[in-house]
Amino acid sequence: MTQAELDRLVGQIGEEILARINRPALSRVEGLNQPESVCPGCVQRCPQTCAKKTAEIVAAGADRVSASEKLTRVDPGIAGLIDHTLLRPNATRTEIVTLCAEARKFGFASVCVNPYWVNLAAAELAGSGVAVCTVTGFPLGATTTAAKLAETETALRAGATEIDMVQNVGALLSGDQEAVRLDIAAVVRLAHAAGASVKVILETAFLDDAQKAAACALAKMAKADFVKTSTGFGPHGATTHDVRLMRHIVGPAMGVKAAGGIRTLDDFRAMAAAGASRIGASASVRIMEAAGSAR
Amino acid sequence: MTQAELDRLVGQIGEEILARINRPALSRVEGLNQPESVCPGCVQRCPQTCAKKTAEIVAAGADRVSASEKLTRVDPGIAGLIDHTLLRPNATRTEIVTLCAEARKFGFASVCVNPYWVNLAAAELAGSGVAVCTVTGFPLGATTTAAKLAETETALRAGATEIDMVQNVGALLSGDQEAVRLDIAAVVRLAHAAGASVKVILETAFLDDAQKAAACALAKMAKADFVKTSTGFGPHGATTHDVRLMRHIVGPAMGVKAAGGIRTLDDFRAMAAAGASRIGASASVRIMEAAGSAR
Repeated sequence: MTQAELDRLVGQIGEEILARINRPALSRVEGLNQPESVCPGCVQRCPQTCAKKTAEIVAAGADRVSASEKLTRVDPGIAGLIDHTLLRPNATRTEIVTLCAEARKFGFASVCVNPYWVNLAAAELAGSGVAVCTVTGFPLGATTTAAKLAETETALRAGATEIDMVQNVGALLSGDQEAVRLDIAAVVRLAHAAGASVKVILETAFLDDAQKAAACALAKMAKADFVKTSTGFGPHGATTHDVRLMRHIVGPAMGVKAAGGIRTLDDFRAMAAAGASRIGASASVRIMEAAGSAR
Repeated sequence: MTQAELDRLVGQIGEEILARINRPALSRVEGLNQPESVCPGCVQRCPQTCAKKTAEIVAAGADRVSASEKLTRVDPGIAGLIDHTLLRPNATRTEIVTLCAEARKFGFASVCVNPYWVNLAAAELAGSGVAVCTVTGFPLGATTTAAKLAETETALRAGATEIDMVQNVGALLSGDQEAVRLDIAAVVRLAHAAGASVKVILETAFLDDAQKAAACALAKMAKADFVKTSTGFGPHGATTHDVRLMRHIVGPAMGVKAAGGIRTLDDFRAMAAAGASRIGASASVRIMEAAGSAR
């Protein structure tokens, strides 16, 4: 048994015990299981969002990438595009458990949680097909590459298969494009080696259109899987203008995630129409209920 | 020569060259010099804000800790209490250089910058007596201890001597006090071993008074040097109520830093009167100018 497998097992046992005695963890236990299956992309047991499989599906023309079996049952056109998100720093264990239960129920693409909660989310979602997405260098992006790598490494071991990293906005605005590219490439290399995918958050609110285009190009050069508009903590969130621009720059073979301020079914539809292939939202349940009523 | 010394030297040479050819860094170089002197606290060459020295001065009854020789020249009662702060994610290289020049001019206690900029700030402030303060797990606090440790480690090697870490607010609100304490203790151990000090940011806006008191007690048990009110990115910043409460809980032998929304000389005075021994501010120059006019 490898160290990573051992870590996962120890973590899973810890969470199981805690769940049974119905109280919060006394301390953090690293590592936890992630959903596995025989992957058509690399023909081995690997995370459901294996980069190879993702690449194959994207190459085949499908913009939306998800392994959730629930997508065909619960409005696949909407639920399967949503990263069900809870990144507030004051989110509690109970709220994360509820988030995961909602993601299972509706068949969302993933839950997006802070790194501390990845262990718990992976345990809650085991076998569901819902991915665990987490964030790196979030929400400022202004930390060192070494810190982003350590954060990513721990998250991957705990069961995350999607990493939403914040690009180094300050470096970009200082004209230091090579630092931005290297920062992204390092995280992408680490994540891809573990079969996980990477979304690069541009935080468009701080950029003009030329800078947004440059940031998209750098993320593409660094072999990231998605570009993403916003953290949800900046001056403003996603706009259809930005999504359209980003889709134009990265082309059809890369993902575009719209996030920040997407609260209604109309917001969702506007972003998808502008070219978003993934939507980050906290109001996902409300969006699904509206979609149900609109049918 | 040790690896850390080599890192510092390489970093310093890199910054010197970049400064001379007047263009931004092409890539990050880890490690840089930090001000050193023969320390009265531990009687060896160590950072100016050496924890032993800090402890001695605090024990002697001085609440304010700074080695800046400028403090006696430029309003020591105010400048020496201020962490001159620029944590916006879109801060540029030019703005960081300006921040450091201002800190030298006024003799602020430190500059407080994001981890990516520690190298540059340490180079700009070499020999000035102004400390380089940076942040860890900022501003959400919801990352793993492993990520906070890696971020701290890189910052210490790059020349930071003060670490403002965000406590795990979500863990505290989930009743998991032991996780909060262990998270702080790990960072404190690492920082103290390098002669650096640690301030624990509570993000009081998310806590009731009992939770603020618990957070203070946990930071004190974990041997942190300061408790700090806010990140400046939460729902609200420092209040005199919170500063008074925190001072009451931690007692006179620990630092209390007020930060977030302190924009005027009146704000500064109110916080100091409530018991703050350090003030984090972006409007520090304006505060100093007001103090100059008021003399």
